[in-house]
Amino acid sequence: MACPPPQGIGMDSCVIPLRHGGLSLVQTTDFFYPLVDDPYMQGKIACANVLSDLYAMGVKTCDNMLMLLGVSNEMSDKERDTVVPFIINGFKDLAEEAGTMVQGGQTVLNPWLTIGGVATTVCPPNEFIEPGNAVVGDVLVLTKPLGTQVAVNAHQWLDEPERWNRIRLVVSEEDVERAYQEAMFLMSRLNRTAAKLMHKYNAHGATDITGFGLLGHAKNLVQHQKNEVSFTIHNLPVIAKMAAVAKACGNMFQLLQGYSAETSGGLLICLPREQAASFCKDIEGEDKLQSWIIGIVEKGNRKARIIDKPRVIEVTPKIA
Amino acid sequence: MACPPPQGIGMDSCVIPLRHGGLSLVQTTDFFYPLVDDPYMQGKIACANVLSDLYAMGVKTCDNMLMLLGVSNEMSDKERDTVVPFIINGFKDLAEEAGTMVQGGQTVLNPWLTIGGVATTVCPPNEFIEPGNAVVGDVLVLTKPLGTQVAVNAHQWLDEPERWNRIRLVVSEEDVERAYQEAMFLMSRLNRTAAKLMHKYNAHGATDITGFGLLGHAKNLVQHQKNEVSFTIHNLPVIAKMAAVAKACGNMFQLLQGYSAETSGGLLICLPREQAASFCKDIEGEDKLQSWIIGIVEKGNRKARIIDKPRVIEVTPKIA
Repeated sequence: MACPPPQGIGMDSCVIPLRHGGLSLVQTTDFFYPLVDDPYMQGKIACANVLSDLYAMGVKTCDNMLMLLGVSNEMSDKERDTVVPFIINGFKDLAEEAGTMVQGGQTVLNPWLTIGGVATTVCPPNEFIEPGNAVVGDVLVLTKPLGTQVAVNAHQWLDEPERWNRIRLVVSEEDVERAYQEAMFLMSRLNRTAAKLMHKYNAHGATDITGFGLLGHAKNLVQHQKNEVSFTIHNLPVIAKMAAVAKACGNMFQLLQGYSAETSGGLLICLPREQAASFCKDIEGEDKLQSWIIGIVEKGNRKARIIDKPRVIEVTPKIA
Repeated sequence: MACPPPQGIGMDSCVIPLRHGGLSLVQTTDFFYPLVDDPYMQGKIACANVLSDLYAMGVKTCDNMLMLLGVSNEMSDKERDTVVPFIINGFKDLAEEAGTMVQGGQTVLNPWLTIGGVATTVCPPNEFIEPGNAVVGDVLVLTKPLGTQVAVNAHQWLDEPERWNRIRLVVSEEDVERAYQEAMFLMSRLNRTAAKLMHKYNAHGATDITGFGLLGHAKNLVQHQKNEVSFTIHNLPVIAKMAAVAKACGNMFQLLQGYSAETSGGLLICLPREQAASFCKDIEGEDKLQSWIIGIVEKGNRKARIIDKPRVIEVTPKIA
């Protein structure tokens, strides 16, 4: 979500100065449609996706979560009673993992199943990080690999021979199944540790990678910079085999061009160069998840680009 | 919306104690489907409806509003470009009238058009009124007449001869048109003055009347009372002619039984008896809107009822 210019400082979340003691209201909302088969995982993914906007602001504590649920009126009673509790429980469980609670929300009937929420925090200025302070010499860190949309689509194509034939020369069914499991795992991971470490390592700003893809969000972030900087991205960490799948599909995904949509993707963070390695090491220590230095902050007029032949880093799940 | 029991004190809005200086987060969300023909009015109604949950808690200041919009994928581009801006402007204009701003939200494509929002306030305890303090001897005040659903439906039936024939003996086309206009006017009115005056006149609790009808919400409110009280309702203010329409439709609406759904209805407020007349007079002075003493708080075991033959008060718009 985006805020209107008058508020400015919020990019992923709105930041509203309050009447009380220098506190600000930081909040964000997101809702969308199921994209994985497992309703419990879908609930977790939806919750992680909402919280990610807070984490992108360096906010690590969510004071309240509202759940927004649209239950499909085209489901049978049995389908509804089976599926919906799993979604709700997945959402609630991840909220709990994030140290918050679902307290309120609304459920309506709707043709399409929808799931989302509203994450709200009230905090003093030192608890959030405005995303506009990148300086020349910073590096860009990414906390999750790309390719979730490619993995989800390729997985659907296992049941659609015509589409499967397009990619079967570059990928096995087993590869796709593994990539899909990895994508679900990644999408349901909180970016909370990254939000916390942004403070420790003096991050100069961040955004989370979602519907506009890595480059789309990088362009948005660079436009919000106070200094005359540009972002240049050299490395693309991608879920194993998904770069090949994307290539085999022509212009469909634009993964290597930086525009493939991600759901609940990683944070893209501007960090002082000398801090970045420790940042990545700390995340790996706490979350057992790899992060990557993918680019640099240079002098420039607020543009972001991926170099001509970026290095594609194949990210294989540690536990297959 | 309802909160889970652990938070308890919030009935229409969630009230979350914060980490900072005794402040609480008060928030609510609501979204639904268009029910009137005029998209600008629909935007206003949706916004008033969301805010009403805050006002029911005696909160008169909303610190931020998020807008939740689902734009129908079945609209043509022209329909979309015509209708959606009106909805958004109606929503924004009413937010402004309420002294707040729409800062954030989300828009998605959806088969059905949906419109809603999230209203959030951060305030000290003296800015909200917990709804559980009714005492024997209080009276019940209602700040808008009932019958919005009946009016909206009757208006739709003007174009459906079969249904119109059911009610044409008790109501004229002109009556229905006037009731529909009045309903739109009422649904788009803020309950903000009532929220403010709840403090001045020491209200002991309130709720807003929406989907469960007057008695449905009265039952919910009485169950939240600390004291052993019951609510008895004697008077039913109803938009002119809508009681007759409801009766002609048999059990369809259950308006006089207290269960006809309202959208953005009035507040039902428990007030000390000696304060109620002044409260109603003040609202009329500020908003040019009538309120009514509709019932009493008696000793009892937390039940609410409407007496056998309630007095139906026909509410005719002052400016027809």
